[in-house]
Amino acid sequence: MREVAVIGIGQTKIDEHWDKSLRELAGEAALAAMAEAQVSHVDSIYVGNMLSDISNLQAHLGSMVADWIGQRFTDAVKIESACSSGSAAFRAGYLAVASGEVDVVLVVGVEKMTDSPVSEITTALATAADADWEVDHGLSFVALNALIMKRYMYEYGWQSTDFAEFAINAHANAVHNPYARFRKAITESSFKNSPMICDPINLMDASPVGDGAAAVVLACSDMLPSNASKIIVAGSSAATDSIAIHSRKAPLRLSAAELSTQKAYEQAGIGPQDIGVFEYHDAFTIMAALSLEAAGFAEPGQGPVLAKEGEIKITGRIPVATFGGLKARGHPVGATGIYQIVEVVQQLQEKAGKTQVTNHDFGMTQNIGGSGSNIVTHILKRVN
Amino acid sequence: MREVAVIGIGQTKIDEHWDKSLRELAGEAALAAMAEAQVSHVDSIYVGNMLSDISNLQAHLGSMVADWIGQRFTDAVKIESACSSGSAAFRAGYLAVASGEVDVVLVVGVEKMTDSPVSEITTALATAADADWEVDHGLSFVALNALIMKRYMYEYGWQSTDFAEFAINAHANAVHNPYARFRKAITESSFKNSPMICDPINLMDASPVGDGAAAVVLACSDMLPSNASKIIVAGSSAATDSIAIHSRKAPLRLSAAELSTQKAYEQAGIGPQDIGVFEYHDAFTIMAALSLEAAGFAEPGQGPVLAKEGEIKITGRIPVATFGGLKARGHPVGATGIYQIVEVVQQLQEKAGKTQVTNHDFGMTQNIGGSGSNIVTHILKRVN
Repeated sequence: MREVAVIGIGQTKIDEHWDKSLRELAGEAALAAMAEAQVSHVDSIYVGNMLSDISNLQAHLGSMVADWIGQRFTDAVKIESACSSGSAAFRAGYLAVASGEVDVVLVVGVEKMTDSPVSEITTALATAADADWEVDHGLSFVALNALIMKRYMYEYGWQSTDFAEFAINAHANAVHNPYARFRKAITESSFKNSPMICDPINLMDASPVGDGAAAVVLACSDMLPSNASKIIVAGSSAATDSIAIHSRKAPLRLSAAELSTQKAYEQAGIGPQDIGVFEYHDAFTIMAALSLEAAGFAEPGQGPVLAKEGEIKITGRIPVATFGGLKARGHPVGATGIYQIVEVVQQLQEKAGKTQVTNHDFGMTQNIGGSGSNIVTHILKRVN
Repeated sequence: MREVAVIGIGQTKIDEHWDKSLRELAGEAALAAMAEAQVSHVDSIYVGNMLSDISNLQAHLGSMVADWIGQRFTDAVKIESACSSGSAAFRAGYLAVASGEVDVVLVVGVEKMTDSPVSEITTALATAADADWEVDHGLSFVALNALIMKRYMYEYGWQSTDFAEFAINAHANAVHNPYARFRKAITESSFKNSPMICDPINLMDASPVGDGAAAVVLACSDMLPSNASKIIVAGSSAATDSIAIHSRKAPLRLSAAELSTQKAYEQAGIGPQDIGVFEYHDAFTIMAALSLEAAGFAEPGQGPVLAKEGEIKITGRIPVATFGGLKARGHPVGATGIYQIVEVVQQLQEKAGKTQVTNHDFGMTQNIGGSGSNIVTHILKRVN
């Protein structure tokens, strides 16, 4: 397999984009990435998206995006694995280049969620769960996460306020990210006083929906000047788990994250101690805790300790959500995985401004589909 | 890139499967393919599906299928490109093996359409067209094809009855296929007397919806005994066109089919004269005509001649729809591309029974997404 490099990135601000259609959002990010990569043509396109069938009555985003950005006739498909669709698309693009089939690939993650009524988006998000055995019984997606969080608190003796620092850290970092949806710091007091959504998940435990798109251009490293500094894909791995939580033997372990992280570490030849930045999937604070544990940064049940002790801050042992994470940058579901990649690239290029982490060659992204049922992990490496 | 072989196939009958859920259909086909391939484990899974978000309120089919067939933890995603989702999934699986990333891949196409009200399926199918510039103005997917057919008849002087033999041939072949939805021959008279759906498309011009699943197992050829006869992927190519018909300079040409077929021929080192069987995308008879032209079997505007002269029959110059095609085998949209592959494999293995074609080493499938906006072509080769 060939070495694959990220040669361009692009993103839109995550917001309520009433003035931009699905294709306009995707196009803005895609064309920015292609401009940075200095390519006017790509060999194939992979679009990460989860909800457009329901929320925009538009499927077939491969063709839509290819045509809109002037790449008509280019091979283009959509990849879907619920909220990890973005990373799954990135992984498909990576494989296409690594295989030798194509040399330059565009990957775009896009989601437009705020045009639809809340009830419709709630229904659409629930399609990530088991329609027959979870959703039919009345569970929403927040409710599934609330069940996990409640059990976690019971098993390990945590209070809901012990999760506050995950949200506070994310918001503190988002202040400096012009693309973030919520550039506003929050305090422990605002966390405590935020309204309950689904006990024990309050508004500050949960990430916001949004409209947005992010994109990357991937190319075979052979095409770059041999002495150029570059960002390469050092690890790419995905694993599934049961789609329904009740089928899991250890519902408080993200087994799919453990597996995909372990494989990505092996591919990159490193371990957790080598990761300088970790863009994790903090759709809910409980997922932040479980991700840190699954990726080897904390023992099972001990994820909140890292947050409480400040180890997830920019200056801490494992900086996370350095551009605001899902919590404050925002979570346009099918685009999130590409935002994570874009952010790690910025960190490794030392272009992260006030939330720049220091002195590391490796960054990791982890994107969770469903309630832990499809988890995609990537490790990017800076090569000077 | 490594050589990739099809080592197992499976399919369900296409029908109204009131007693089988989406996962049960997918599982039946997948487990049959794995049994034939004699594998109990696969390295990754690609699911082709278009409509389940709307018609079954179930996304995330990668995880759902992996878990259901006993492959929990396996890397699995859904691939979507409207009605060519099945072939797009096959192509993704092919690339995964060809890249060297994995050795054994399962590809499943599945669709369950008859559980939903007709209005909902019509809405769902229309998501393959341009939501902003076609569907918002009231066009359904049948209407788009009717516009193309009407213009084609005007430009080339055909009558609607000149398309009858496409349907008659498909039904004649489906009689012998136990997996076909409509195993009933039709006559020119029944074609003429069938009700009009959307002028000039009548009921016999159009393929039926249905529930069904088909699956294949792909493996690296190196894993097979060196002297084994095998079916390999000799060509794999996809191309897009504008998602909206009105943006095309030549709306009566399937440019994406011309491009992807030409590239597949080049990869296989052959031309149209070498193809012994062509499983084309006869969703409507007009698409049958356009596909034959785009693939080099007829001049533009002359596709119906092949049908009228009997050249598309099993004994003709280019046998098509040998198991009934979309018209009579049925068109469970996201599964169709895999049915086509399964059928060509059966032909090359000389297991096609009464509709067996003779003496050829190459078969071709072509799967159309949207109104010609995403077309995937595969050439399979028998190696003895």
